[in-house]
Amino acid sequence: MKFEVTILGSSSATPVFNRNPTAQLLNCNEKIYLIDCGEGTQHQLIRFGLKASKIDAAFISHLHGDHYFGLIGLLSTMHLNGRIKPFRIFGPAPLKEILEMQFKYSDTVLRYEIEFTATTADVPEVIFENGDMTVETIVLNHRIPTTGFKFTEKKRQRKLLSEKLEADQIPVEYYPLLKRGLNLELPGGKLIVNADYTRDSEEPKSYCYCSDTLADGSYLDSLRDCTMLYHEATFLDELLDRANMTHHTTALQAAQIAKTVGAGKLLIGHFSSRYKTLIPLLEEALTVFENTELAIEGNTYAI
Amino acid sequence: MKFEVTILGSSSATPVFNRNPTAQLLNCNEKIYLIDCGEGTQHQLIRFGLKASKIDAAFISHLHGDHYFGLIGLLSTMHLNGRIKPFRIFGPAPLKEILEMQFKYSDTVLRYEIEFTATTADVPEVIFENGDMTVETIVLNHRIPTTGFKFTEKKRQRKLLSEKLEADQIPVEYYPLLKRGLNLELPGGKLIVNADYTRDSEEPKSYCYCSDTLADGSYLDSLRDCTMLYHEATFLDELLDRANMTHHTTALQAAQIAKTVGAGKLLIGHFSSRYKTLIPLLEEALTVFENTELAIEGNTYAI
Repeated sequence: MKFEVTILGSSSATPVFNRNPTAQLLNCNEKIYLIDCGEGTQHQLIRFGLKASKIDAAFISHLHGDHYFGLIGLLSTMHLNGRIKPFRIFGPAPLKEILEMQFKYSDTVLRYEIEFTATTADVPEVIFENGDMTVETIVLNHRIPTTGFKFTEKKRQRKLLSEKLEADQIPVEYYPLLKRGLNLELPGGKLIVNADYTRDSEEPKSYCYCSDTLADGSYLDSLRDCTMLYHEATFLDELLDRANMTHHTTALQAAQIAKTVGAGKLLIGHFSSRYKTLIPLLEEALTVFENTELAIEGNTYAI
Repeated sequence: MKFEVTILGSSSATPVFNRNPTAQLLNCNEKIYLIDCGEGTQHQLIRFGLKASKIDAAFISHLHGDHYFGLIGLLSTMHLNGRIKPFRIFGPAPLKEILEMQFKYSDTVLRYEIEFTATTADVPEVIFENGDMTVETIVLNHRIPTTGFKFTEKKRQRKLLSEKLEADQIPVEYYPLLKRGLNLELPGGKLIVNADYTRDSEEPKSYCYCSDTLADGSYLDSLRDCTMLYHEATFLDELLDRANMTHHTTALQAAQIAKTVGAGKLLIGHFSSRYKTLIPLLEEALTVFENTELAIEGNTYAI
């Protein structure tokens, strides 16, 4: 199953010359989900040759503008481009009010339905589930109610060992049962032992998205053993006081969190506009957690 | 006096690869005014090396997103960058409600004051005046309440004829009176005839901004003899039906309006995303009105 994330924006509060505010596109088995949507996200989609029409849902972490000011424009453009497929939005309850007010005053009646699910930042909750994946909120600690999101693949069926099945001439009609893990006793009494003809499928992968938050450890349980952790790393650790004051995280802290929770890989982003080059942020994280990468706009990272 | 306009966005409803939604920056004697503010306007300012901090006021024509979705982000960025100078906004009344709601939910208390003036689309009104300039609304005919804006220089004082003043040894203390057009009789009875020592100043220039509107002639009185007319030209005239249906103007109609009102120059913009090249729009306008230019992003046009 395809499971990858494309970075559309990696800047924090204000855009800078070559960095846009936060937005990511997650591809889970060809279902496309937008995570946060800073101003100019629709421009970034155009820039990277990605189609807004393919997006199925948006997950908005909180109502600071650098995480959602681009949503209303994207929704408007999809309307103007003829979208009729419903669009799901997960985010703080007032987001619905903000969007509806803007549609009201522009006298816009969308051609497609918005299915809005309000998130709360009280306890982690499963907010979405389909055949491939479950999405659960991560309760972050920011200046206003903020959630991250944990996207977890569902456990796949067992994999068939084709050569063995063919060698023993096991009838094809039993394959679906074997995939589901059953042992079979045939009418003549012959036993088909599942373990002889199947192997376990890969462990489900997970992607945790954490932006923005104070690195206070309160949400680490949500991140345990995730395959890839995206964590904001707004500042270098020399600005730890500023990070604490603004409820943000330093690159060093992000790496410590990745290490503590046993993440497979760390992706850092949400960089302060003061950093012209991002290498020092990467180097700082690498001192603690080796498998770290910078979230670079336009890049796609396999989870 | 400097009087010029820089184009920040020239696209209509949706952004396209190389065109942003509508925004312009007007420089009137080094006071900087933003006219409309589509999504990504703050990115365009960065791109063209222009400073948001220098902007004194914004004039918003109407509440279709391609004309104002970028305002909230720009206001937020100015706040984060430490602005304390008040910022004036002229636009439809609900704009205030939309901005305030977004600041409320992001828990933002701006460091600077927003001085909001609600426009109405009933009759033309003078909404702003300073020593250099008067701004009057233009009542346009769009699908929702929409105003254009007419920026008119104030008549300058008379110009002194320095050589003549010096030759006749006219005392400097009389210069301010002469600039104001007075004739003077000195204590000894000597007459200083104003016309001998001054000439009339240049005629005040004016810039009319018309976007978006049906080209129905209802607002032409507001445009008479303007120095430069910016008029939307969303479509080629072959799409006149579509222009009428969506309350927009064709390039041909924009040129006819410029000719009818006796504009000095026509600038066309707000181009539909369907036009990959803009030359046909320019050529169509040129068949009717010779002094036409395309509004090209990043270009500055002297008024």
